[in-house]
Amino acid sequence: MEFEKITIIGLGLIGGSLARALKESNEVGAVVGIDPDRETIEYALGNGIIDIGSSDIKEGVGGAEIIVISTHVGIITDTAKSVFPSATQGAIITDVGSVKSAVVKGIEPYLPADIHFIGGHPIAGTENSGVKSADSKLFNGKRCILTPTEKTDPLAKSKVTGMWELVGSEVREMDPETHDHIFGLVSHLPHIVAYSLINTVLNAQDSDVLLEFAGGGLKDYTRVAASSPEMWAQIFKANKSHLLEAISMFKDSLGEIEEAIENEDFDTLKKKLDKAARTKRNL
Amino acid sequence: MEFEKITIIGLGLIGGSLARALKESNEVGAVVGIDPDRETIEYALGNGIIDIGSSDIKEGVGGAEIIVISTHVGIITDTAKSVFPSATQGAIITDVGSVKSAVVKGIEPYLPADIHFIGGHPIAGTENSGVKSADSKLFNGKRCILTPTEKTDPLAKSKVTGMWELVGSEVREMDPETHDHIFGLVSHLPHIVAYSLINTVLNAQDSDVLLEFAGGGLKDYTRVAASSPEMWAQIFKANKSHLLEAISMFKDSLGEIEEAIENEDFDTLKKKLDKAARTKRNL
Repeated sequence: MEFEKITIIGLGLIGGSLARALKESNEVGAVVGIDPDRETIEYALGNGIIDIGSSDIKEGVGGAEIIVISTHVGIITDTAKSVFPSATQGAIITDVGSVKSAVVKGIEPYLPADIHFIGGHPIAGTENSGVKSADSKLFNGKRCILTPTEKTDPLAKSKVTGMWELVGSEVREMDPETHDHIFGLVSHLPHIVAYSLINTVLNAQDSDVLLEFAGGGLKDYTRVAASSPEMWAQIFKANKSHLLEAISMFKDSLGEIEEAIENEDFDTLKKKLDKAARTKRNL
Repeated sequence: MEFEKITIIGLGLIGGSLARALKESNEVGAVVGIDPDRETIEYALGNGIIDIGSSDIKEGVGGAEIIVISTHVGIITDTAKSVFPSATQGAIITDVGSVKSAVVKGIEPYLPADIHFIGGHPIAGTENSGVKSADSKLFNGKRCILTPTEKTDPLAKSKVTGMWELVGSEVREMDPETHDHIFGLVSHLPHIVAYSLINTVLNAQDSDVLLEFAGGGLKDYTRVAASSPEMWAQIFKANKSHLLEAISMFKDSLGEIEEAIENEDFDTLKKKLDKAARTKRNL
């Protein structure tokens, strides 16, 4: 047994998948799941996703070596604080939020002595959500980013690294601001753009006709735009400064193409498109 | 036999697929393929895609009931004009270009007596290109738009409709400007946005690191941005006015989300995202 007890708070797609993967590893004595929704707990217990279930944080976190907060980004900080009083000495809190700087700044300064924290972000997910989509292979071969700071306990970092490696992830480290800059550009911005593109068509007077022809290209974007609005609104809010910068950078790139069309500058236009197309071949 | 002879000029993905589908229908006496590239002709002949091949327009269009111009958008008009002297009386010229207004305006006023023209746009394609990707099922169950005008000969329209129905397409009619407005928004704009998004990342100082994490969401866009830059640059140029309007509409929608993030207006933000996400479920 690599771990005696790991508690996961929030049994959605990510939390449920992590629980199921840890169970299947046979390297965790007890996988505890905490969720406010009784039906979710029942489902997770009935389908071998968790060993012990509870809707009570106090009850669920006692004795856990690692406590994984797997809620929406907007409530990670408050959830962590609600864990402090009941966590066992030496417990390590980590999370799976898509934004790291706000989370780390919201938790680290308030940590009690002998409770550790390190931010985490597994780069995995689908447009599905909820415990019923839990998939033990979700993290297999995927990256998980950990965002240690100078305050991070080395042993805590090594234990959380071990947990993610147990479910097949390749762990990478970076500081929280670098993480938020990178994922602002490669993940959050593409979602904002997809939402904006769909809304462009919806805002048009003839949106019904336009949607009838969505197969022409628009449809490729709808998978991205179908992800949970609640979740993404929280992510956008939490990563405000990096996102406003990313949007501004995007507007510059869009403006270059717009200007080339406006000026009927065919050579520049082709050059701009060719640059983008070549990238695909290298990915 | 529904047709004695159909000639296709330009054996790329679309032209090659149409040739192959018409051959397989057994309703065309002779499918003639014209392409400047000798290897393309050899391949098409060797793989049963065409009955007769030529690199010479004069040689290939004589006696054809329908002449399909399947070149890039930028040279459709000139190609049509080069066909006029050799086309048999009563021949119908059509095309497969993604932009219609510029093509129709570039051909219709110059038509000789007894040569007909109607614009067409099969809504089909993949990120592949070239005769080797030719697929006889490419148009099956897909829409094909025809853009007749008041000058269009009714018999010519009905024959071209018949040809597309032969390969499994559902034919729809609309005027050229409506077509360019619709496809400017549902097809050309999404491509511009994809190219701009990839270029945003390429323009960043740390683009190498960013591309390493493209799996976070950016990758969904790269399929779109990988399409032929030459082809898309011509489309963007040919649909300039509708596209500049579409880009302006997109900037408004993006601005709404940007403003909600800037103002930390979570309710508005959620509402904007929810609107887009609900659409996906209805598509």
